[in-house]
Amino acid sequence: MSGEAPKPEGMIFRRMALIGIGHIGSSLARAIRREPDMVGHLAVSDLDPEAQRRAGELGLADSLHAEPADAVAGADCVVLCTPVGTCRAISRAMAGHLEPGCIVSDVGSVKRAPIRDMAPNLPDHVHLVPGHPVAGTEHSGPDSGFAELFTGRYWLLTPPEGTDPDAVERLAGLYRRIGAMVEVMDAEYHDKVLAITSHVPHLIAYTIVGTAVDLEKQIQNDVIRFSASGFRDFTRIAGSNPIMWRDIFLNNREAVLEMLQRFSEDLTALQRAIRWGEGETLQTLFTRTRAIRRGVIEAHQDVPPSMTDRQDDADP
Amino acid sequence: MSGEAPKPEGMIFRRMALIGIGHIGSSLARAIRREPDMVGHLAVSDLDPEAQRRAGELGLADSLHAEPADAVAGADCVVLCTPVGTCRAISRAMAGHLEPGCIVSDVGSVKRAPIRDMAPNLPDHVHLVPGHPVAGTEHSGPDSGFAELFTGRYWLLTPPEGTDPDAVERLAGLYRRIGAMVEVMDAEYHDKVLAITSHVPHLIAYTIVGTAVDLEKQIQNDVIRFSASGFRDFTRIAGSNPIMWRDIFLNNREAVLEMLQRFSEDLTALQRAIRWGEGETLQTLFTRTRAIRRGVIEAHQDVPPSMTDRQDDADP
Repeated sequence: MSGEAPKPEGMIFRRMALIGIGHIGSSLARAIRREPDMVGHLAVSDLDPEAQRRAGELGLADSLHAEPADAVAGADCVVLCTPVGTCRAISRAMAGHLEPGCIVSDVGSVKRAPIRDMAPNLPDHVHLVPGHPVAGTEHSGPDSGFAELFTGRYWLLTPPEGTDPDAVERLAGLYRRIGAMVEVMDAEYHDKVLAITSHVPHLIAYTIVGTAVDLEKQIQNDVIRFSASGFRDFTRIAGSNPIMWRDIFLNNREAVLEMLQRFSEDLTALQRAIRWGEGETLQTLFTRTRAIRRGVIEAHQDVPPSMTDRQDDADP
Repeated sequence: MSGEAPKPEGMIFRRMALIGIGHIGSSLARAIRREPDMVGHLAVSDLDPEAQRRAGELGLADSLHAEPADAVAGADCVVLCTPVGTCRAISRAMAGHLEPGCIVSDVGSVKRAPIRDMAPNLPDHVHLVPGHPVAGTEHSGPDSGFAELFTGRYWLLTPPEGTDPDAVERLAGLYRRIGAMVEVMDAEYHDKVLAITSHVPHLIAYTIVGTAVDLEKQIQNDVIRFSASGFRDFTRIAGSNPIMWRDIFLNNREAVLEMLQRFSEDLTALQRAIRWGEGETLQTLFTRTRAIRRGVIEAHQDVPPSMTDRQDDADP
């Protein structure tokens, strides 16, 4: 059984297992490996043999496994870095192999669903501490990750009521060491906030890019050529992992639908203002929204301190 | 009368007048002043005494004027760099002071309206060549401009039928010298393409940021804190100049409303797919939109080569 002998100073976990080595998993692996001795052994498993092979070539793991069950054996911390829809099956596959006291977490952008899907399958002797790093780019796969992804970014933890606070604090300690700002919150509140900050914006971006896909070929080409005028930002968002996003929408249905309803009402009001030439209505809204932009800048959320592969502007 | 004696080599215009010295006007002034002798004299006028004063301090003009009529006197090229809604009044104010052969242009994001608003007021002896640089940031005012803004960016020209091709070519030559890629197109087609690449995306961004403004204070604060998850990109777009955008929507009503209608139908279909848990419908759309993103990257419209004040990423 792990956790008996004292751990070397600075070590947070003796053996940590990452299930899934895509954009987030590989960024987390890179960040962990930059901190010497923070994790004794990093085990990685991925269903995709190609991703597993790349993880090996990139030196992201101390051991590589095809099966989650093999990766989690002996681990005192397991983090699922897979689309939300896989949580149920993975929790079932690994449940019988989890050590007592092991912390089980994930990185999904919805937080009620993983609790619903994992908690019933896990043994009582493990600590379920779901998490969500508010970070990432539109890229996918083990090559797209980078160690600085979480620097200065929020990592939200949503432990169910009654979770051992020490387990939460241990996991939070690791995320802080790799530069994240950890916040603990209620899973339901998390899903409501993320519906507006992330899920609905992504759905809207996917929709408008999809609307463009349906235009005649000539217009579509020019939409691409002149995309610097605002559309480009939407294509970036709409270039994200389709399966990950499908799972997010299927698993945060109520909050997304509620926010979409509000958004649609507001859009209809603006549509009407345009139709009737109500300039003041437009100008008033466009002025009010500037305050939110200022808030984002003041909260230092406008410029990610992490490495990115691109620069951007927006314009008329 | 200008244009009689031969111009020094490399000079395109003897006297150029910029009406309005905000983000675009000041970027254009900076770009022009980087090219020695391309323009003999740069006259600038701005209604706002503060903008005029800053333009002077920043060395953006050879002469500064409160009245457009004074700036355009003796000019062989005039470019309005003001919100679209001002075109009618400015064209009236300057009409009597325009030299024969003078080229009159603008930089508005809609192109039918400036033709409608300016053409009837201008004397027959000038050339109306409306234009639109597909470039800019969300910032406003003379301090926000920079000379590299147009580098590698499209500058669209929409001369009405029958316009002197030499006049179009002269203006195109200047814009090419400052690094832009010039395309000539029909004003109506322009407005249709820009409705989807720019106007509707901006309206949507304004709407969702407005929806967030109406949330309870606590959620609103957290929306700002966790804005890195997608919302941030929308706040940037929604931080743009309210009057400029009001004028764009009022002056491209039909194309914007048509695209909004398509967008709303597509969004409703996705909303329905989420409600009924139709994962395949979602995944299919999310996969199709990736092709557009690839098109944007292949067209080199993903990364502006111009200087920007910020970096970005997007994420779940």
